[in-house]
Amino acid sequence: MTDPRHGLDRKAALGGLALDGGGRLDAVEVAYETYGTLNPQASNAILVCHALTGDQHLASAHPRTGKPGWWVRMVGPGKPIDTDRWFVICSNVIGSCLGSSGPASIDPATGRPYGMNFPVITIRDMVRAQAMLLDHLGIETLTAVVGGSMGGMQALSWAATFPDRLRACVVLASAARHSAQNIAFHEVGRQAIMADPNWANGAYYDGTPPTAGLAVARMAAHITYLSEAGLTAKFGRSLQNRTAKTFGFDADFQVESYLRHQGLSFTDRFDANSYLYITRALDYFDLAEEHGGHLANAFRASKARFCVVSFDTDWLYPTPESRSIVHALNAAGAPASFVELSSPFGHDAFLLENPALDRVIAGFLGAAA
Amino acid sequence: MTDPRHGLDRKAALGGLALDGGGRLDAVEVAYETYGTLNPQASNAILVCHALTGDQHLASAHPRTGKPGWWVRMVGPGKPIDTDRWFVICSNVIGSCLGSSGPASIDPATGRPYGMNFPVITIRDMVRAQAMLLDHLGIETLTAVVGGSMGGMQALSWAATFPDRLRACVVLASAARHSAQNIAFHEVGRQAIMADPNWANGAYYDGTPPTAGLAVARMAAHITYLSEAGLTAKFGRSLQNRTAKTFGFDADFQVESYLRHQGLSFTDRFDANSYLYITRALDYFDLAEEHGGHLANAFRASKARFCVVSFDTDWLYPTPESRSIVHALNAAGAPASFVELSSPFGHDAFLLENPALDRVIAGFLGAAA
Repeated sequence: MTDPRHGLDRKAALGGLALDGGGRLDAVEVAYETYGTLNPQASNAILVCHALTGDQHLASAHPRTGKPGWWVRMVGPGKPIDTDRWFVICSNVIGSCLGSSGPASIDPATGRPYGMNFPVITIRDMVRAQAMLLDHLGIETLTAVVGGSMGGMQALSWAATFPDRLRACVVLASAARHSAQNIAFHEVGRQAIMADPNWANGAYYDGTPPTAGLAVARMAAHITYLSEAGLTAKFGRSLQNRTAKTFGFDADFQVESYLRHQGLSFTDRFDANSYLYITRALDYFDLAEEHGGHLANAFRASKARFCVVSFDTDWLYPTPESRSIVHALNAAGAPASFVELSSPFGHDAFLLENPALDRVIAGFLGAAA
Repeated sequence: MTDPRHGLDRKAALGGLALDGGGRLDAVEVAYETYGTLNPQASNAILVCHALTGDQHLASAHPRTGKPGWWVRMVGPGKPIDTDRWFVICSNVIGSCLGSSGPASIDPATGRPYGMNFPVITIRDMVRAQAMLLDHLGIETLTAVVGGSMGGMQALSWAATFPDRLRACVVLASAARHSAQNIAFHEVGRQAIMADPNWANGAYYDGTPPTAGLAVARMAAHITYLSEAGLTAKFGRSLQNRTAKTFGFDADFQVESYLRHQGLSFTDRFDANSYLYITRALDYFDLAEEHGGHLANAFRASKARFCVVSFDTDWLYPTPESRSIVHALNAAGAPASFVELSSPFGHDAFLLENPALDRVIAGFLGAAA
């Protein structure tokens, strides 16, 4: 551990932030973790951006679940994102529920949790809050912004919004906009939450949270994170009770039991309103739209090198989405490398053991340095 | 109209049925429709089997919604399934809610709706009830059994269970078993229904039905019926309000509004408990398992010719599922034709305008005659 504060839950009060939706947050707080040591020139920082339900606990244990950091296999001493070399920052996105300003935060205007009075935010709003955190930390330019899934969208938005502040941009299993199918799946999740009477229009913080609705939302989303072949390989039609079907409605198949567990355990660590707000930010994401309808325009001012990675079994953000990013980068004259990696694990592949991904990231960051 | 009873809502009381799950229904009722005229030899009958949320209103208006029959483009005078030539029967599957015995039916033991006391049924149980209906109608042998999706599973089960009673079997956009992903999506729907407090363990028939949960279930399932490309072509990221995003949680995107409508309108015509029972029957379906683990064994006694059709954008029951059926038919020495048709509409393609499908079905039935 090169940083004695490693793994501590830190929070920065960053002042006001004007939002894409026209609203304003007067007192943005951002919770974050850092790993490694910032050099005297403040030139060795890498920002890692988390996905929809991720958090700042990148490479240290999650305080609520006790589980290891979500990318501990990628980030640490001697790992592809090497904390002996880089100062790695990961912050909880605004709208989330792990310490950054979100719907569960206290609204200073009322002294009560925001609930649905929290303003709708965008991916770019998340990125602007991260930039304020960097200002707070005294970091002008990042060696790289790295992210998978929604983290990749933040990385793209970084390159478009702060073209001078990053030297490299790593975009994994992501897309430059949400497709109709992506929006549809999120809408199912939102409707599941809002159908739960405990949701109470978002004002449930003094009562019972809408865990049943949130669990259903997570179950539906979870299917999209896995490949059909991966589910078949892991579960197939195996029964919980190996001898026979029960001819009832308990979780007879292992895949049912697994999904129910995924849904329920998620409700222990995530806030339903945050799920609404972050899925909304994802659905609104369309980087081309923010730049006159031409994705290449988003990258014309960028000084970064780009590394774009897709996975062959990812059907949430399939390879053509990455390819269209690379086409735009090429059109903008931005240096870009692109690879489609093979994995049986679908969208979640970027989080899982994949030596080829390790080599791509370590090699790209080394060359970008 | 060659049959003056065309489109009338008819129901047959068929006596007792022993079920795969070990239970028994003492007084099975099956609601059905017929189109065309049965010839004196009773040799021109075609049974059409409906899908999960389908019904017997194949080619005549649905009594509740007033909408045209669900396959009116395929079935009628001069159409591919030509009612000038064939006597076409379509019955509501047991477990459903359009007149056949199901969880909303009165349990003779209690005088109250079965609810969750209805026994869990299988695809083969549905088929056995259809065979009882044919006995009732005086039809020993069918010219063909035709079905898409769950209807295709019934057609396969017909060939396996009553190998002497059909001369042809048409299986569209279907599978010989439910995959882990198929089960997972159904489990999301079931959990959405069961999470609705109005579900009340299935005993809601005197109160408020669980429409919110059923709507969410339908929304999740509906996505699986469409292709990603089809959703993009139909909706893309188009907004309801064409001028700007609202930065709220109303249905901002057209695809959201469409899905919400699909969910809500479904609750007008379908019973939540029936949705639980029929999805369960689908998940339990594994034709190979019923025949010693070898799908070919299911077809060894069959005297039928088979026609198997898949659609290139169907990701619910993708082409490899059809191909494995055809491999088994080949191994069993059963005559089988197989074609993958092209369509932008995903799983729902079998229900929609597709001249190539019309030619395949008309040609196959003509040759089978």
